[in-house]
Amino acid sequence: MTRKINVGLIGAGRIGRLHAEHLAFRIPQANLLAVSDILLQAAQKCAADFDVPMATRDHQAIMENPAVEAVVICSSTGTHAHMIEQAAAAGKHIFCEKPIDFDLARIDRALAAVEKAGVKLQVGFNRRFDPNFQRVRELVAAGKIGQPHILRITSRDPAPPPIEYVRVSGGIFLDMTIHDFDMARYLIGSEVEEIYAAGGVMVDPEIGQAGDIDTAVITLRFQNGVVGTIDNSRQAVYGYDQRVEVFGSGGVVRAGNDYPNTTIVSDGQNVHRDLPLYFFIERYTDSYIAEIEAFIECVQQDRPSPVTGIDGRIPVVMGYAARKSYAENRPVRLSEIAPA
Amino acid sequence: MTRKINVGLIGAGRIGRLHAEHLAFRIPQANLLAVSDILLQAAQKCAADFDVPMATRDHQAIMENPAVEAVVICSSTGTHAHMIEQAAAAGKHIFCEKPIDFDLARIDRALAAVEKAGVKLQVGFNRRFDPNFQRVRELVAAGKIGQPHILRITSRDPAPPPIEYVRVSGGIFLDMTIHDFDMARYLIGSEVEEIYAAGGVMVDPEIGQAGDIDTAVITLRFQNGVVGTIDNSRQAVYGYDQRVEVFGSGGVVRAGNDYPNTTIVSDGQNVHRDLPLYFFIERYTDSYIAEIEAFIECVQQDRPSPVTGIDGRIPVVMGYAARKSYAENRPVRLSEIAPA
Amino acid sequence: MTRKINVGLIGAGRIGRLHAEHLAFRIPQANLLAVSDILLQAAQKCAADFDVPMATRDHQAIMENPAVEAVVICSSTGTHAHMIEQAAAAGKHIFCEKPIDFDLARIDRALAAVEKAGVKLQVGFNRRFDPNFQRVRELVAAGKIGQPHILRITSRDPAPPPIEYVRVSGGIFLDMTIHDFDMARYLIGSEVEEIYAAGGVMVDPEIGQAGDIDTAVITLRFQNGVVGTIDNSRQAVYGYDQRVEVFGSGGVVRAGNDYPNTTIVSDGQNVHRDLPLYFFIERYTDSYIAEIEAFIECVQQDRPSPVTGIDGRIPVVMGYAARKSYAENRPVRLSEIAPA
Amino acid sequence: MTRKINVGLIGAGRIGRLHAEHLAFRIPQANLLAVSDILLQAAQKCAADFDVPMATRDHQAIMENPAVEAVVICSSTGTHAHMIEQAAAAGKHIFCEKPIDFDLARIDRALAAVEKAGVKLQVGFNRRFDPNFQRVRELVAAGKIGQPHILRITSRDPAPPPIEYVRVSGGIFLDMTIHDFDMARYLIGSEVEEIYAAGGVMVDPEIGQAGDIDTAVITLRFQNGVVGTIDNSRQAVYGYDQRVEVFGSGGVVRAGNDYPNTTIVSDGQNVHRDLPLYFFIERYTDSYIAEIEAFIECVQQDRPSPVTGIDGRIPVVMGYAARKSYAENRPVRLSEIAPA
Repeated sequence: MTRKINVGLIGAGRIGRLHAEHLAFRIPQANLLAVSDILLQAAQKCAADFDVPMATRDHQAIMENPAVEAVVICSSTGTHAHMIEQAAAAGKHIFCEKPIDFDLARIDRALAAVEKAGVKLQVGFNRRFDPNFQRVRELVAAGKIGQPHILRITSRDPAPPPIEYVRVSGGIFLDMTIHDFDMARYLIGSEVEEIYAAGGVMVDPEIGQAGDIDTAVITLRFQNGVVGTIDNSRQAVYGYDQRVEVFGSGGVVRAGNDYPNTTIVSDGQNVHRDLPLYFFIERYTDSYIAEIEAFIECVQQDRPSPVTGIDGRIPVVMGYAARKSYAENRPVRLSEIAPA
Repeated sequence: MTRKINVGLIGAGRIGRLHAEHLAFRIPQANLLAVSDILLQAAQKCAADFDVPMATRDHQAIMENPAVEAVVICSSTGTHAHMIEQAAAAGKHIFCEKPIDFDLARIDRALAAVEKAGVKLQVGFNRRFDPNFQRVRELVAAGKIGQPHILRITSRDPAPPPIEYVRVSGGIFLDMTIHDFDMARYLIGSEVEEIYAAGGVMVDPEIGQAGDIDTAVITLRFQNGVVGTIDNSRQAVYGYDQRVEVFGSGGVVRAGNDYPNTTIVSDGQNVHRDLPLYFFIERYTDSYIAEIEAFIECVQQDRPSPVTGIDGRIPVVMGYAARKSYAENRPVRLSEIAPA
Repeated sequence: MTRKINVGLIGAGRIGRLHAEHLAFRIPQANLLAVSDILLQAAQKCAADFDVPMATRDHQAIMENPAVEAVVICSSTGTHAHMIEQAAAAGKHIFCEKPIDFDLARIDRALAAVEKAGVKLQVGFNRRFDPNFQRVRELVAAGKIGQPHILRITSRDPAPPPIEYVRVSGGIFLDMTIHDFDMARYLIGSEVEEIYAAGGVMVDPEIGQAGDIDTAVITLRFQNGVVGTIDNSRQAVYGYDQRVEVFGSGGVVRAGNDYPNTTIVSDGQNVHRDLPLYFFIERYTDSYIAEIEAFIECVQQDRPSPVTGIDGRIPVVMGYAARKSYAENRPVRLSEIAPA
Repeated sequence: MTRKINVGLIGAGRIGRLHAEHLAFRIPQANLLAVSDILLQAAQKCAADFDVPMATRDHQAIMENPAVEAVVICSSTGTHAHMIEQAAAAGKHIFCEKPIDFDLARIDRALAAVEKAGVKLQVGFNRRFDPNFQRVRELVAAGKIGQPHILRITSRDPAPPPIEYVRVSGGIFLDMTIHDFDMARYLIGSEVEEIYAAGGVMVDPEIGQAGDIDTAVITLRFQNGVVGTIDNSRQAVYGYDQRVEVFGSGGVVRAGNDYPNTTIVSDGQNVHRDLPLYFFIERYTDSYIAEIEAFIECVQQDRPSPVTGIDGRIPVVMGYAARKSYAENRPVRLSEIAPA
């Protein structure tokens, strides 16, 4: 049996609290030592709820705490890159929520700092740890569907975020599709070369006024020849719709949605069942636990990160390519955004 | 009770025989009077098998037969437009297999002849009569999913046609996707403005040598704002894969594949069932009957054709747009192919 | 290619017309020569609708017609045994609707007549020809689920028959469960030794006043040790419910209901689809065709009947055992009804 | 926010450890103060793993600890009744694993002690807290399927317990079916009057030599007229099979199995998915948490127990009735076992 890893949490908002709960109660190998938030009350409530011995408004207290071996960064996006650099300088292993940053140069500086410090960095693409998608990847990687030819991802949220959030979100491609870009790379195991994005404002005109779109269909061309398509909507009234399909020379593999129960009713009208799990908190609970567990294990056992800094960087490049493609209505190569 | 319609069949190949059997045995309102084929033996065998009183190698004999009220054209594609013109001139109602032609000018001449003669013309887009897709359209048209936003069509054949056929097929977009283009228009009830096609040769290099591709992902932009995506493969080893999905402001509707039985086995390895119905003959039997029945009814009751000449023309335009898009790797507007 | 079989139809009610249509249009190997019904108009209408050259009120005309090789008996139940004897005496092969009779002695006389005449007899247990159940039997017989242990049959009608029919039906066990008794023997391939029946009047008190019940759960004990259970209801408001399951040492196999389409809608309320096919006419169309086709083939090719006279007799014995079990509330051995 | 409940755990075997983990990490309202086991090491390991401050071999230390408000009894079945009496005498609320005892008189003494002490008693029928079955009950109770007519329960284990366990288990009806007896009462909301059990030894002859059977089909007759059927097997090679169905005047509701993922593969052979969750630990994790949470809440908020002592007693009566029915091959009324 291996020793426990001491962890510090930076940011006690919704996602921070989620990780705090898992670190506290679900991952015996982790020891959550401290939590910081610029709102001291949030840090204190988090500490009280999840038995964390130290709460602070100053993340430096965590960075400087020699007992802390690893940090979990859940502060606002604009601070991620800086936090990574600080943590790396302090020799701490890093779990960072996605995205690392919207600025590729800042991402590169943060990754360089990580590299130089020799610490581990895992980016929070939690869907890679979902049992459905893991099984798909496993089957694809094992050649069960032969050589992949076509990828299909459906990814629709139950409701759009507040319009204030939309304004600073970086746009649908960098905020929402970014998860699907990661999923595409994860499932196919090859890089995307070119992207074509179509879509529009169909859900809420306010989203359009904020300079964004809410509905999109994206075509991906991979280096290994696979063609993929992603469709996104900010509003699926029936709940979170998260499905993938990989088709290949030897067959097809599909993952469907998760439901709160298997109960089916037939009455005089129709055959019906309850809607799928509502949103990411419900649907991806297990994957949030599994990603943090994987992080703790990779630190503990000195194994490579399952979601590296490069895995964090490339979907941002893809997001910019999609944005440019949509703006100019033409396929855009990733090399236009980030020359190799 | 209405009188029977006397029908002549032109072309006794696979699809011709299919229609012959249905006209003979499944559609009480039709009276199959004569069958022609340039191979007399084929016409004779068809006549013998389905109790048709007259077999001939000369389609003129059918065109000139005053008892024949309607013709079903199943001869080779290159003859369709000409047959339509002849039948129109002879005052006969026309059911014609898709495509009308690959030449838009010839299509237009044929449609003009039909218009002038005042006869009915129905084009053989049989999938419109499939119970799954009909139910989807019905629900979409009834507003059950609100305003449509996204369309997804998966259409994959179990095996590619012979390479000789591929060479004269007009290419995947005009031969295979043409059905999906029709389905897209049928389900959404709006016209496509712009198409972007990606894909490649993944199934068989010989198809590439024949100047065609075998795998494609196509993006459609509709006039009403809907964005759609079609994915095609010439070879799904698990059988014919024919699914559609329409997503909208009020929900989503999906139609899945048809299976030979509902039987499911769980053993020590996994839970499994038989593969879906193998190909169009098995899957679309009912829709082939229904389309001919609809044709006979529209003649009998003097109602508008459910699949008009324009419905036959537009998917050809879409096929050319897709082909051009693929060749030039850019979205192509339909107006580039056929100016309004 | 084999010669056609000339068939005479006795009884032109609902089920008679069904067979007439199939013999006329769906089974090229059959030639429907004549139809009789005690209501001449019914015979005439049937003949007109399905191109039958002769209609008569006198079934003797069919029995005596030397051109008729096989008869299809669809007259009322009370006449079946007598018709079988007459047809056997006339040397004609026999397809007879179930049940042969409610009187075991009369059944035995009819079967003796068949045996003596050396003609073929097939009893109308059409469900044996349903693709779902055929696949279950095939898998069970092939040992795919190992040695069978448990059988489950759910068999529920969408609506009870008219109360006048209930009164002369022989009771639920002989009228409705009889099909499930046959299915039980067909799927397991072993004979039932003992039956226990529970149930009651839950759907309609009038059924109780007619001396019958409308809801039942029946336990079957087979000679090979398998235990089975059947549940019946005269009224499933969601439509015809016809499912089976065989569980064994190596797994389980299940067949579910058939639906008019595969279309599924998710809206803001739930995920729903259309109800299953409504009743036997819709659900078992293919099996009605297949059973008559099998009959024609067994005559044509001189093969054994797929559903023999014994197959017709045993479910009647089971029906009596179930009735006695219900009346006396105790398990009843089949040997109490029909000593071996 | 309410105060935490201090809990003592008696028995640190498999199920005891399960509850310990949930009390420690998943139920913030509980405070697990002490754990006892007759094997001190087991108690100590449990305490170490789940941060329990006290471990002892003597359950008296827990009974006498004034800080302990509630006990969770997971010791061997033969000790349950005695533990309940002791805990009641000590004024502690009680959660007790099923069954309370196999001796009805001892059960009655234990329930009398609980009644006298005025403490709460919840029996460990965890399946009542499974989301699938809860949804079924909710829908039945809400009248969504009208008046219930038929109940079907399939309950099959993936593998039989060790033969040593079988010998002391009380037999399949008291050990395994007891859960289904509880489920039957829970779903229908009426009491069973009469039971008929059939079955045999089909899985393992050693089970027969131990005086037990391994396969059973049980018919239940409820006071409200519903007829039910349960089928059990000690060995379903495809994993834990836990399904229920309630059919009524207004429809039917069904709950199916739970799977580790939704991933489905179609290859050249068939369409397949992974087997259902293997056994109760995997399948019922959430229900184990929910039942303990419900217990803590009923103590905390002084609400009635969701699974009372009577709920613990009746399934034992049903088990004896089933056993007698099987032995005598006749329906047995519960009043034969426990006169009202």
